[in-house]
Amino acid sequence: MLTVIDLNSDVGESFGRWRSGDEEILPFVTSVNVACGMHAGDPVHMDEIVGKACDLNLAIGAHPGFPDLQGFGRREMTLSPREIETYVLYQVSALSGFALSHGSHLTHVKPHGALYNMAVIDDKIARAIALGVARAGEHLVLVGLPGSCLLQAADVLGLPAAAEAFADRAYNSDGTLVKRGLPGSIIEDPDEAAKRALDIALRGTIKSIDGKEIPIPARTICVHGDTPGAVEMGRTIRRRLESAGVILRSLKELAGLRK
Amino acid sequence: MLTVIDLNSDVGESFGRWRSGDEEILPFVTSVNVACGMHAGDPVHMDEIVGKACDLNLAIGAHPGFPDLQGFGRREMTLSPREIETYVLYQVSALSGFALSHGSHLTHVKPHGALYNMAVIDDKIARAIALGVARAGEHLVLVGLPGSCLLQAADVLGLPAAAEAFADRAYNSDGTLVKRGLPGSIIEDPDEAAKRALDIALRGTIKSIDGKEIPIPARTICVHGDTPGAVEMGRTIRRRLESAGVILRSLKELAGLRK
Amino acid sequence: MLTVIDLNSDVGESFGRWRSGDEEILPFVTSVNVACGMHAGDPVHMDEIVGKACDLNLAIGAHPGFPDLQGFGRREMTLSPREIETYVLYQVSALSGFALSHGSHLTHVKPHGALYNMAVIDDKIARAIALGVARAGEHLVLVGLPGSCLLQAADVLGLPAAAEAFADRAYNSDGTLVKRGLPGSIIEDPDEAAKRALDIALRGTIKSIDGKEIPIPARTICVHGDTPGAVEMGRTIRRRLESAGVILRSLKELAGLRK
Amino acid sequence: MLTVIDLNSDVGESFGRWRSGDEEILPFVTSVNVACGMHAGDPVHMDEIVGKACDLNLAIGAHPGFPDLQGFGRREMTLSPREIETYVLYQVSALSGFALSHGSHLTHVKPHGALYNMAVIDDKIARAIALGVARAGEHLVLVGLPGSCLLQAADVLGLPAAAEAFADRAYNSDGTLVKRGLPGSIIEDPDEAAKRALDIALRGTIKSIDGKEIPIPARTICVHGDTPGAVEMGRTIRRRLESAGVILRSLKELAGLRK
Repeated sequence: MLTVIDLNSDVGESFGRWRSGDEEILPFVTSVNVACGMHAGDPVHMDEIVGKACDLNLAIGAHPGFPDLQGFGRREMTLSPREIETYVLYQVSALSGFALSHGSHLTHVKPHGALYNMAVIDDKIARAIALGVARAGEHLVLVGLPGSCLLQAADVLGLPAAAEAFADRAYNSDGTLVKRGLPGSIIEDPDEAAKRALDIALRGTIKSIDGKEIPIPARTICVHGDTPGAVEMGRTIRRRLESAGVILRSLKELAGLRK
Repeated sequence: MLTVIDLNSDVGESFGRWRSGDEEILPFVTSVNVACGMHAGDPVHMDEIVGKACDLNLAIGAHPGFPDLQGFGRREMTLSPREIETYVLYQVSALSGFALSHGSHLTHVKPHGALYNMAVIDDKIARAIALGVARAGEHLVLVGLPGSCLLQAADVLGLPAAAEAFADRAYNSDGTLVKRGLPGSIIEDPDEAAKRALDIALRGTIKSIDGKEIPIPARTICVHGDTPGAVEMGRTIRRRLESAGVILRSLKELAGLRK
Repeated sequence: MLTVIDLNSDVGESFGRWRSGDEEILPFVTSVNVACGMHAGDPVHMDEIVGKACDLNLAIGAHPGFPDLQGFGRREMTLSPREIETYVLYQVSALSGFALSHGSHLTHVKPHGALYNMAVIDDKIARAIALGVARAGEHLVLVGLPGSCLLQAADVLGLPAAAEAFADRAYNSDGTLVKRGLPGSIIEDPDEAAKRALDIALRGTIKSIDGKEIPIPARTICVHGDTPGAVEMGRTIRRRLESAGVILRSLKELAGLRK
Repeated sequence: MLTVIDLNSDVGESFGRWRSGDEEILPFVTSVNVACGMHAGDPVHMDEIVGKACDLNLAIGAHPGFPDLQGFGRREMTLSPREIETYVLYQVSALSGFALSHGSHLTHVKPHGALYNMAVIDDKIARAIALGVARAGEHLVLVGLPGSCLLQAADVLGLPAAAEAFADRAYNSDGTLVKRGLPGSIIEDPDEAAKRALDIALRGTIKSIDGKEIPIPARTICVHGDTPGAVEMGRTIRRRLESAGVILRSLKELAGLRK
């Protein structure tokens, strides 16, 4: 059986003097989602990370979030659909300029933080995001949770989409993520995370926090780049997938192949 | 003698609940410079004003400024050349996305406020701006004061450029603007401003504050849209130019025809 | 029967070049709630408005809001109680410095926009606000909707409180405000608003949008200062109250006399 | 000979998810200068650090800066004297509220970054800062470079002041600091820095970068808390000073004893 999957990471989150160190994860992933300045990132760091991602031939995507530097885009905000649509268009377009000037172009868009989470269950928000992305470019792949309103909105608008799974996050048995902060929500052991990545890639399943095996159809696996053990986690997951014969391909190559 | 000139205005400066009212000037100009969110403007208002400018077939340009909402981009900041280059690329690209999604595209870039003024005399800043613009698109026309470092930097990089004159600002006899706040620095009488616009368009000259006639080679004349009498000023200038047989053409049509 | 009431207005909302014009309402009110820089206001304008309020011997209060300049504090944000408590303490303290340096001091605190509305029904938010206010000074009067969680939280912490009514907003029959944007939510006719102010002051009642007379125990009536007809509205309400023998006293004088 | 000196550090610079780790330096200093939210810091972190400083009985001061989170207050901005005065008053007052609510109060104010440097040589800026501090409280000690315009402005306004020296920064022979970024500008060896601290404390001198012994009258020595070796540096300097019989006293105890 041929199994092809993408590994993505959220990067470019450095802001002014604050360094996230997320560029360390680049050698281990095939796609990156770059912060665009509203919740994190700034033009200098966007330029740097896009340049590095180009050198490694990674697929480059935008990672738009709420305009909330202090809360890092992790605090819910009640914006109008029109605000969300235009904020997304703004951020994706800004990043797109950096990609183009490095001789590349954007492949995909993955919302960040609270915006990502709200788009799982809120159809209005999901459609506003998808509309902003569609306006930025009809070829852009929308990345979201399988079964989310966001991926449904991509379908409605005819946008390509990619379902995403998390190797280092615990799942409830309904396929949603165990909320950050709850016990066991984060998998910190690289071996455990790699085992879960293998299950996702090879079998399309993951074991939920209460021990059930649930289906997780995913085209891309997220590896976090901003945690202490991120590099080791990324290296371990990549090695295991490759050892098991899983073929890694970026969203550039996988676009349209949505599971 | 055939005389062709552009009338431009700085617009899109509304921010959240704050409305500049600058969309009132649109019917009287041929090109607009749209704020990009760092010193003024926000994605919702950028989208609105770009849509209106498209309806009127105006040339759309970016109006990037310093990241200083509180100071409206009018306070000097000492940024590194790399910061300036990437901040310009960021802002121009963000606005470009709105223009593209309305089926149009950007024609030009005109720096705002303190950034514009610093680029008149500071070669490092001028080159950083020009580099940011060149990275956003080699076809973009850079708009600046005649004789400024900014227009020289455009030449160095092979960017098209357009020299700009102000019908409603007083000039020193060396061709620089009389600083805002000094007595007589702003021309408030529409008739007087229109007379000056005619001199600029037909004779390429303007009378300085100490009474000398000085050469002002200009391809575009700026009309301010955010002052109380802006609409009356715009209407009067436009009428007089047209009555005198001056042909108004936007920077879309004039690009490359730098005086 | 002796009737004493306060008239308050939200002011100091100017930000950089953006002028709200809300200082025009000062002569018609007895207390002001001054924006503190997070959703609106800046140090220069805070200083100006506090100076003017001192000259008129008005009671000066803080008007803290969410950190959201673009949304003017009118967009809900999900902050932790600790964030809300410290954001309130920060804003109240900053404004307090201006009052003290003008030889005055703060009398009260009234949350702004989405923070105010959320504190009506969310007990955790209400307590976080009250805690922040208590830390800024136990003498500070907390202003809120009658029956709100906010006023209950003031009771729990032993803070003085003042119930507030709106002469220019429609009410549902359960005593809550008809949401902005719904038809009839805003009373624009000064005479109608003045009539309602009289009902509030003299009878402690208001007519709801569906025609019922409901009890509105209020120690202070809010008059908006940032709408086109604000001055006329303020003047009319004040005159009518005074003509009817209602005694106007600021929250400085009324503190502790909660209805 | 009795020698008494203060050790101060800039702290409270964490912002949202970004942690500076500067609270590690607290056990080794006697006074802290706390960021106030404009260039760094946020209400949650201000509250935390002020609480810790109170537990250790440190003198607490404000560390106001330019409103520039992206530039960390290290980029020069051309603000009007009125803006500087009110921005300082705002920041000092905000922090003051946290100190008061922890049962303490502010002792001093030390401007941050570009604002500090500009106040060395620009008299207008220095006076605007001093005026803002005076309005926040006449007892507040203004901390600055010996011979700076800032300390002169303190004199003019009758504010107490404390001259500051840097153990880990190189000096030019005219008593100014060697600019950051130039070779040798930062002393990274704790022993070398401690030796310099001893010279400052015991002899009132320091060796300049070109080998001259120059007078540095200082009441307080700054120890940086945000660099990798900060803790080791702080520990070494403190031990050496104490071993040599230097008495460490905070600015709370030294106020008025300006050298």
